[in-house]
Amino acid sequence: MTELSDQHQKRSDKWRDAVAQTFIHNMPFNQLLGLELVHYDAQRVEIKLPMQKKLLGNPIQSILHGGVTASILDVAGGMIVAACAIEKNVELSREELSKRLANMGTIDLRIDYLRPGFGECFYATAEVIRTGNKVAVARMELHNQDNVHIAFGTGTYLVG
Amino acid sequence: MTELSDQHQKRSDKWRDAVAQTFIHNMPFNQLLGLELVHYDAQRVEIKLPMQKKLLGNPIQSILHGGVTASILDVAGGMIVAACAIEKNVELSREELSKRLANMGTIDLRIDYLRPGFGECFYATAEVIRTGNKVAVARMELHNQDNVHIAFGTGTYLVG
Amino acid sequence: MTELSDQHQKRSDKWRDAVAQTFIHNMPFNQLLGLELVHYDAQRVEIKLPMQKKLLGNPIQSILHGGVTASILDVAGGMIVAACAIEKNVELSREELSKRLANMGTIDLRIDYLRPGFGECFYATAEVIRTGNKVAVARMELHNQDNVHIAFGTGTYLVG
Amino acid sequence: MTELSDQHQKRSDKWRDAVAQTFIHNMPFNQLLGLELVHYDAQRVEIKLPMQKKLLGNPIQSILHGGVTASILDVAGGMIVAACAIEKNVELSREELSKRLANMGTIDLRIDYLRPGFGECFYATAEVIRTGNKVAVARMELHNQDNVHIAFGTGTYLVG
Repeated sequence: MTELSDQHQKRSDKWRDAVAQTFIHNMPFNQLLGLELVHYDAQRVEIKLPMQKKLLGNPIQSILHGGVTASILDVAGGMIVAACAIEKNVELSREELSKRLANMGTIDLRIDYLRPGFGECFYATAEVIRTGNKVAVARMELHNQDNVHIAFGTGTYLVG
Repeated sequence: MTELSDQHQKRSDKWRDAVAQTFIHNMPFNQLLGLELVHYDAQRVEIKLPMQKKLLGNPIQSILHGGVTASILDVAGGMIVAACAIEKNVELSREELSKRLANMGTIDLRIDYLRPGFGECFYATAEVIRTGNKVAVARMELHNQDNVHIAFGTGTYLVG
Repeated sequence: MTELSDQHQKRSDKWRDAVAQTFIHNMPFNQLLGLELVHYDAQRVEIKLPMQKKLLGNPIQSILHGGVTASILDVAGGMIVAACAIEKNVELSREELSKRLANMGTIDLRIDYLRPGFGECFYATAEVIRTGNKVAVARMELHNQDNVHIAFGTGTYLVG
Repeated sequence: MTELSDQHQKRSDKWRDAVAQTFIHNMPFNQLLGLELVHYDAQRVEIKLPMQKKLLGNPIQSILHGGVTASILDVAGGMIVAACAIEKNVELSREELSKRLANMGTIDLRIDYLRPGFGECFYATAEVIRTGNKVAVARMELHNQDNVHIAFGTGTYLVG
């Protein structure tokens, strides 16, 4: 029993590594943004985004573009939902699980902009607030390096 | 009366040109995306986005990243709201109007993803559904070159 | 072929009548609000709500409570999504279709309040903007008897 | 200084009592729902809603109507935003403050339905996540008597 649970944990970790690889290294737009993974399991994801000039919306005041905020929060939400889907479906065959993950996608996304995006480095975190066989909902937050809270996000995702 | 109205129209056009310049040419992230302005007045804005590999979320299926969709729809909403604010406040002094535009910002943004972002070129349009002295709300749409409807957006903006 | 289509149309109409009965007559809160059905097929739903004193949020200015607006728009969205689900699944067995409809529910709802809810009578309409086997998205509008546009709504629904 | 602060606190408490009276006792629809105030200051509001048959959406399974959830969360958000506006503007004249509160209203509202609304009694809580001179944003939650989390809400409000 414990052994099986260990096996499942290993399998879940392996799948999650593959998802992380896909989101962080294989998605061209995420590479363009410069996303870096800080922490990733089914309870919590944390993504780091170093500020770059090309990411500015307002270059005079040096404020992060709101679209970058939306992008990184959508990624954080999608990754946490994927991690939960893997844990829930770890007993499925490779083909079934692979198909489920391929069918994932954002249904809708809401961003609440709280403060201007000043900072040298930004951190996006996410947690799941609703899980299901078809739909999951995540809440996301963006803070800067001084822990100033910049934005909230809520995303509804199709999960296979 | 007509003369004055003409003067106001000219002034409004000039301010709108400056706003367009700011959004399309002076915002680094919008340049990175490659946004191009197709049409812009207080009734309607249309922005063109040619597909590029760096904008992909899913490179295997060639699907636009959802964050790019959110970014361009936020820009379209912000621009239409700015054009309306200019028309409403065209009698204000240069300093007052300039201050109002500088204080503009997105309060919240909702994106509804309808279909995968396949296409060679995307078009974002926006219209204002609520105007006020403090807050305006816009609805936005994203279509591809074949007029396939890819996403809806709704944005609430602070207007000075 | 035509005959079969006729059969399916009849079956679809019958199921839709049952859904209308459920929403308008069997849901206690909808009865409390006083909802009346004006039109209902898979393309469009229209629900009428006569103003009553008990529905006021602001009794001094006689403004409809924002929660009533949210309620009727959620009902309109749910009904149009149900009608689409019936059309798509009309070949399913009675048990299967019944189960699907029983599992329907609102995942998330966004209301944009455009103007104060003045009026003697309100009309909610809805259309589907995304259909799928698992999730559907609807857009809704509320107008008063003079066609003044009071609110927009967007709802994401689980569909079986 | 302390004395003045005490005066301001008293004044703020008095205004907040008036707001509570308005929301809970003078709004006909809130009376119809049966809202009761449990706690109210500028940091936190808690509203109680005893279940009643007339509030059901699904009478067979005894599930609270989603419109009731939206209604009570909108009220909780509006009340916390009003309490913050009072604290921020306590030095204004009676006329000014009264005018500001009269101009308050919901701009947009998002509800995330997490679980079916089973329960004998529901509790709505709210906190402010963005305050400003023109716009405030609140996050709300609905739990039942067993602390089961039923819904999240996010509301954007005009504040005078």
